[in-house]
Amino acid sequence: MECKLTLPETGPRSRAVLPHDWLDYDMVPHLTTSLTGPLQELERVVLDRRADIEHWFRGQWREHQPPFYSSVDLRNSGFKLAPVDTNLFPGGFNNLNPDFLPLCVHAAMSAVQRICPDTRQVLLVPENHTRNLHYLQNVAVLKRVLEGAGLTVRIGSLIPDLPAPTEVEASGGDKLLLEPIVRRGNRVGVEGFDPCAVLLNNDLSGGIPTILAGIEQPVLPPLVSGWSVRRKSHHFHVYDRVAEDFARLVGIDPWVVNPVFSQCGKVNFAEKEGEDCLAANVEFVLAEIREKYAQYGIKDTPFVIVKADAGTYGMGIMTIRSVDEVRNLNRKTRNKMATIKEGQPVHEVIIQEGVYTFENVDGGTAEPVVYMMDQYVVGGFYRVHTGRAIDENLNSPGAEYKPLAFETDCHTPDCGGKPGDPPNRFYTYGVIARLAALAAAIEVEQLVERNAALEVRAANA
Amino acid sequence: MECKLTLPETGPRSRAVLPHDWLDYDMVPHLTTSLTGPLQELERVVLDRRADIEHWFRGQWREHQPPFYSSVDLRNSGFKLAPVDTNLFPGGFNNLNPDFLPLCVHAAMSAVQRICPDTRQVLLVPENHTRNLHYLQNVAVLKRVLEGAGLTVRIGSLIPDLPAPTEVEASGGDKLLLEPIVRRGNRVGVEGFDPCAVLLNNDLSGGIPTILAGIEQPVLPPLVSGWSVRRKSHHFHVYDRVAEDFARLVGIDPWVVNPVFSQCGKVNFAEKEGEDCLAANVEFVLAEIREKYAQYGIKDTPFVIVKADAGTYGMGIMTIRSVDEVRNLNRKTRNKMATIKEGQPVHEVIIQEGVYTFENVDGGTAEPVVYMMDQYVVGGFYRVHTGRAIDENLNSPGAEYKPLAFETDCHTPDCGGKPGDPPNRFYTYGVIARLAALAAAIEVEQLVERNAALEVRAANA
Repeated sequence: MECKLTLPETGPRSRAVLPHDWLDYDMVPHLTTSLTGPLQELERVVLDRRADIEHWFRGQWREHQPPFYSSVDLRNSGFKLAPVDTNLFPGGFNNLNPDFLPLCVHAAMSAVQRICPDTRQVLLVPENHTRNLHYLQNVAVLKRVLEGAGLTVRIGSLIPDLPAPTEVEASGGDKLLLEPIVRRGNRVGVEGFDPCAVLLNNDLSGGIPTILAGIEQPVLPPLVSGWSVRRKSHHFHVYDRVAEDFARLVGIDPWVVNPVFSQCGKVNFAEKEGEDCLAANVEFVLAEIREKYAQYGIKDTPFVIVKADAGTYGMGIMTIRSVDEVRNLNRKTRNKMATIKEGQPVHEVIIQEGVYTFENVDGGTAEPVVYMMDQYVVGGFYRVHTGRAIDENLNSPGAEYKPLAFETDCHTPDCGGKPGDPPNRFYTYGVIARLAALAAAIEVEQLVERNAALEVRAANA
Repeated sequence: MECKLTLPETGPRSRAVLPHDWLDYDMVPHLTTSLTGPLQELERVVLDRRADIEHWFRGQWREHQPPFYSSVDLRNSGFKLAPVDTNLFPGGFNNLNPDFLPLCVHAAMSAVQRICPDTRQVLLVPENHTRNLHYLQNVAVLKRVLEGAGLTVRIGSLIPDLPAPTEVEASGGDKLLLEPIVRRGNRVGVEGFDPCAVLLNNDLSGGIPTILAGIEQPVLPPLVSGWSVRRKSHHFHVYDRVAEDFARLVGIDPWVVNPVFSQCGKVNFAEKEGEDCLAANVEFVLAEIREKYAQYGIKDTPFVIVKADAGTYGMGIMTIRSVDEVRNLNRKTRNKMATIKEGQPVHEVIIQEGVYTFENVDGGTAEPVVYMMDQYVVGGFYRVHTGRAIDENLNSPGAEYKPLAFETDCHTPDCGGKPGDPPNRFYTYGVIARLAALAAAIEVEQLVERNAALEVRAANA
């Protein structure tokens, strides 16, 4: 029962050939998607093969434990729908549609049942930036979700100089008690609270904190998932295989769901070192894109995104349209690229095919971000930026967030029908986001295995 | 960490001692619950012990496979909250809040992942009454949920004389194609469709259909869950144990969540046979209730509900307030009790403690019905009847259905707080309903085991 190869056969699909008004169509913020235009081939294939796709995912989730939670930034260019970043410490639960928190609660119950059924008490470890009240609201929502799943939650802070439990107020008015983490032997907790598991909502950009290293309680996600260990290039290497398997399953060109990428291991933007490596790899990725654009008759200008390989928070990211630009980076850009969150210097970068976003919400450039817990899509939002172009990173100051809704008021007989329908587009987004979550699951397995091997070697040394 | 025994200690709790106006408080149909009054002790215990309760359920669901789906009729008398009927072929998915269908989709995905991960195609077998357009809408919603979970669904009808695929239109406008079930060897399907599993939404009151007997495909729920095999008294026997375990866990008197019951195996209402048995058991149950009412200082009049032990659709049910009533049943009542769905004669009855319902929606007597799929509460509704009293069965012609919502707009810091809050009451309803679903899980396990033993005996005979 092989599916017909739909996308390549129907030929060119580009911004240039689309009716002009689809970009302005139906731009209500709370719409499920802002687009009702193209992408019909991929969506049609995904919808037609829905039963096979879900069956395939069920098989994958039997082999690989889904991340406890994750969020995936997608870019939808009309001819391509691809993940560009996969976050294992999602910080935007406050931006999800609050009507769908019960979905998060169920998914959290499922994750706990699967990963740590004996857990009653959880220590939630957030980021340290207590002045970001929206981030604190994310922590508050997350706490509520975990409590909804029947867990007792307290918040263990990694703030180095936190002298005592400190109450902070989040942007939504929730009060949170941040308590200093206490370690006794190989267990951590807060005063009077011995949790069965630790849930990280801190991406550990600054390294694995000593107080958490080697503890006997399970840590979710595993400590090695933090950005001091994790690399985007490793994630997208694994994603290559996942995308290939998926593309074979549904009979499409994997490129349609997978951005080309390369990497450089030794750059120093401040000292202008590693420029040749960067230029060569930018040229390699641009050439690959050019070839694909030619194959599909796409008239757009290829571009790449250069990012810190361990970067987060939208820091250390630039758009590059030609090799010349690499050679002529100005001081300001080089400074921006040189250090990222928590002052970490950037020496490794990923050079990723840039995917135009053709989504627009309320006049701002937009990209969908899909949230998952366990194996389930639990919501999402549009990241919208009025000051950014369709070939730029939108995860930067000034971005706004518009919740994505699941459409459920569909009672007409053909509601499963047209690919352009918002609920169907959201289904497709959920499929591609789950491909990235699956890649993250395999990636974390590999990191845990590698870490175990290193520990054995250290023990034998 | 034993919990204090809260309910008995705080003493009498009865309709008589409650402020009069709580019955009229906040009776908006779409409210999560119609009550904001008493039940505070049980709710307080349940909320205080939430982490332990969810931990306990996780353990139970590791031991016992949850029913694919179920619905539980609850009665809330203010001093008691108990299940009175557990349905393994729920027929009211059309009455759930459509906003929460994504919860059903996730739960269905979870059930499929757990029970039959290899399944892609499902044959849905509904009841035969095609003139009940609301029931057909239930089938349509169920089909949509299963499709949402990535299954391909066709509807196999047991209608004996269905000559060919027949399109019917449900009350919501959905069109359904009912197709004659075709059996080839030990597999069933419909023309051109070989499903991996059969999902029953038909309670098999008339017996296990020959066309489904002994098929190799998994049947959900198992064929022995049908009312030709299942008995309410068996369910409530198992529930006795579940309620005791739960009551021990949270430190309450199990009676608070468990109706007293007894049974009679040989009655014939038409011929006035078995009257002595019925009278003796009615007296036994009434005496038990009297004792409990005395213990808690409850001033209400005890009553029992006599029901066909294999009855469904609200048929074969009567309210009995004294033994004299049993001796003086009029012809009309005896006829009503003599036969039930599909003309099945009634010979076995369950005599169950009547639980007053003190819930009232829009001036009608109301009782909550909670829906579950897999281990998850996915929604519910109030069954409301303006023509019935608070000691009568509400599942009868003239009943209306008002969806229960999950409250999610709770953003105040103390939102987990007061027991009377609607979301908290719904949580408590979900806990008690899940106790009944757990009893059903164990009950079906026992039925499957017994059936397997019978088959072995038959094979050896």
